[in-house]
Amino acid sequence: MSTTAFKSYIEENQDRFLEELFDLLRIPSVSTDSKFQQDVRRTADFVKERLLEAKVDKAEIVETEGYPIVYAEKMVDPSKPTVLVYGHYDVQPADPYELWKSPPFEPEVRDGKIYARGASDDKGQMYMHVKALETMIVNDALPCNVKFMIEGEEEVGSSHLAGFVKDNREKLQADVVLISDTGIIDNENPSITIGLRGLSYMEVEVTGPRIDLHSGMFGGTVANPVNVLCRMIASLHDEQGRVTIPGFYDKVAELSDEERSEINRAPQDDEKYKQELGVKALAGEDGYTTMERIGIRPTLDVNGIWGGYTGEGAKTVLPSKAYAKISMRLVPNQHPDEIDELFTKHFESIAPDTVQVKVTPHHGGEPAVVPTDSPAIEAAKKAFQDAWGKEPFLTREGGSIPIVSLFQKELGIDSLLMGFGLDEDAIHSPNESYGVFNFLKGIETISLFYQHFAKV
Amino acid sequence: MSTTAFKSYIEENQDRFLEELFDLLRIPSVSTDSKFQQDVRRTADFVKERLLEAKVDKAEIVETEGYPIVYAEKMVDPSKPTVLVYGHYDVQPADPYELWKSPPFEPEVRDGKIYARGASDDKGQMYMHVKALETMIVNDALPCNVKFMIEGEEEVGSSHLAGFVKDNREKLQADVVLISDTGIIDNENPSITIGLRGLSYMEVEVTGPRIDLHSGMFGGTVANPVNVLCRMIASLHDEQGRVTIPGFYDKVAELSDEERSEINRAPQDDEKYKQELGVKALAGEDGYTTMERIGIRPTLDVNGIWGGYTGEGAKTVLPSKAYAKISMRLVPNQHPDEIDELFTKHFESIAPDTVQVKVTPHHGGEPAVVPTDSPAIEAAKKAFQDAWGKEPFLTREGGSIPIVSLFQKELGIDSLLMGFGLDEDAIHSPNESYGVFNFLKGIETISLFYQHFAKV
Repeated sequence: MSTTAFKSYIEENQDRFLEELFDLLRIPSVSTDSKFQQDVRRTADFVKERLLEAKVDKAEIVETEGYPIVYAEKMVDPSKPTVLVYGHYDVQPADPYELWKSPPFEPEVRDGKIYARGASDDKGQMYMHVKALETMIVNDALPCNVKFMIEGEEEVGSSHLAGFVKDNREKLQADVVLISDTGIIDNENPSITIGLRGLSYMEVEVTGPRIDLHSGMFGGTVANPVNVLCRMIASLHDEQGRVTIPGFYDKVAELSDEERSEINRAPQDDEKYKQELGVKALAGEDGYTTMERIGIRPTLDVNGIWGGYTGEGAKTVLPSKAYAKISMRLVPNQHPDEIDELFTKHFESIAPDTVQVKVTPHHGGEPAVVPTDSPAIEAAKKAFQDAWGKEPFLTREGGSIPIVSLFQKELGIDSLLMGFGLDEDAIHSPNESYGVFNFLKGIETISLFYQHFAKV
Repeated sequence: MSTTAFKSYIEENQDRFLEELFDLLRIPSVSTDSKFQQDVRRTADFVKERLLEAKVDKAEIVETEGYPIVYAEKMVDPSKPTVLVYGHYDVQPADPYELWKSPPFEPEVRDGKIYARGASDDKGQMYMHVKALETMIVNDALPCNVKFMIEGEEEVGSSHLAGFVKDNREKLQADVVLISDTGIIDNENPSITIGLRGLSYMEVEVTGPRIDLHSGMFGGTVANPVNVLCRMIASLHDEQGRVTIPGFYDKVAELSDEERSEINRAPQDDEKYKQELGVKALAGEDGYTTMERIGIRPTLDVNGIWGGYTGEGAKTVLPSKAYAKISMRLVPNQHPDEIDELFTKHFESIAPDTVQVKVTPHHGGEPAVVPTDSPAIEAAKKAFQDAWGKEPFLTREGGSIPIVSLFQKELGIDSLLMGFGLDEDAIHSPNESYGVFNFLKGIETISLFYQHFAKV
């Protein structure tokens, strides 16, 4: 099948492709919130049905103790290479709802972008694979074997994926895991991700007095847990923007000058970046560029904080409790379990005796780097060259896809991180979007990848 | 009328008195939250009706631009002294509701305590005055003139009381303002409050990036407003527990050794205090006792903080905004307007250029001290002696009743702070309560006060 032929097929069917994606986006598959439980399950069924329609050999719902995994396969010839597509059908919570210009679960196209929760992360990106596969199969052009493994718990730490992978090592055998859950630099500068940060995510609870008190009657005599929590959080960074937890940097892989200059080769305009983010100044660890701060340096961020009265008006309460969700992005060779432990030990040690603290780790994830000399990277480079007319940059992203290290460890397979998102997609934020261009170009690039990968 | 006679009247009618109070407590008159608007107004009507039933000469609802003021009077003889009773019929918000053992607006007596929002602050205490007046009038024993001024905006800064007072200087003329919105040390150690702290209450908003971001994709390159807010809040105290805002202590009245030892004469058991609060250690400004920290030293407390994701599970957001409600308790001669300004200037000055801050003052209140050699204090001491068999301590409380300085300024009248609450009442907290003993003993003490005050 010629490049032109399946480009035409994508063009001719683009309206239907988008309509199907919209149907997928309409289901609020928020895995972190149990009230969406039925919706998450419905989404798995939806994905399975669309895969069957794409004429795979088989597609099945595999139950886990959490949300099910959708597995499908299309085997064309055992002697040909096999691609294992990974994606997820669950999405982040959509709140705060009031900041969305159109409702998060009613997809809408404005200025060439699809607005909806999950538009980019990861329904839009995952669905490109379903449509690329359909394109190849319908046009009788699929040159290799394809397996799909689409989970529903990525946003809650992929709790049951490891078990599934361990139980199905044979079934999942492949030459590469293909994942579209990352981004490109921009539509003029396509790129392939070769590194991802890991994650350690903690929840802390600081208790002062056993009940909420009147801040007038008691203020000044007893520790206020919010003030204490603020002081503790403030102490987690030094003046150079470094994390102060003892041992935090011990295992951080230091890169060679050559590697650092490769990272800084990617176009990055700090002025434009500031403008896009709406800030007067950037921040971060002294001595590193923006690309390095994202790609190769670990961080610590508060993802949420709450305590006391947060409603309208003024309430003079001295709260009993204060809470925060604090996460750390990890780089090779930091390990989430070790960082969880270092954090817990340190956080408990800095608590004054006027309060009690409780530290609970949420899911973590390993950082990952993928080899840059693999057949998959070679095929991907060619696919980008064909579809975009440019060789892609090789970049390190700041986000986490913890399952990349799982696949390396359990299946012995490297991943190819070929995502088509943009920074402006606002994933995990209100008004998440995904470019119609990126969706269709992604389908094209993936299809081309199959052709090249079968040959290398 | 003999002491015994009206003691009997109170005893005979106590069930009805309590039932009426329960009806009052059932109306959720939360003035800080506009959704309770109709309930707040209904409460004013309720108070007016009960005053009419107590056979005052007149009782009226006086409209303001906010919630109305209930005014009533019973004039027995223009040549006799006049007492102006002040109280409030509005209450604090009841959230978090889930921490209440019984619903906040369904009063319930357990172990001799009435549990409900407003049970102590101030419906229970205010209603003692309605019932004390009824007791005196019904028994034809009222020896002086009594006026009532009960407002519905105390918990939102008494926004329209000043206007009412200025417009009604003549009508409100009296020899003393009698207020029961404070407490006693405990039921073995009755006390009269002679000092109150003032209040400056600020809301701050810190903005980092213009939208919520993915903490992986952006973490480490841009300031996180929660981390910045924590750092700013942490810097507001030094290691000695002193507030670091420049000029904050400039006007603080330093007390003589004699005054300090008078304050420390009141029984205060730090061990018991810690136990009651459920803390291992107390906190506060170095160099001062607990009684001094409450009574004569200013403070800064976070009353509420929020930002980012605060729901169930883990969301990897780098928030756009973080907020806090921060209040300062003031002592003589600090002024809320000046402190608002000092705070605002300082808070803006410590903001790094990676964020934008907005500071908004809520209502404030002046600190107050009342003279200890007035006829009212003399009469109150005698009333306590009769009712409790003990001379009351003279104490300074940590809370604020901003209107005390208003009455001094606009009417030239000092206030007598004769409240009967206990620390354990948990006002402004879940499970607020008021002792049945305190309610009834309060009615008795107030009635005795009228008798003594008419004579001094």
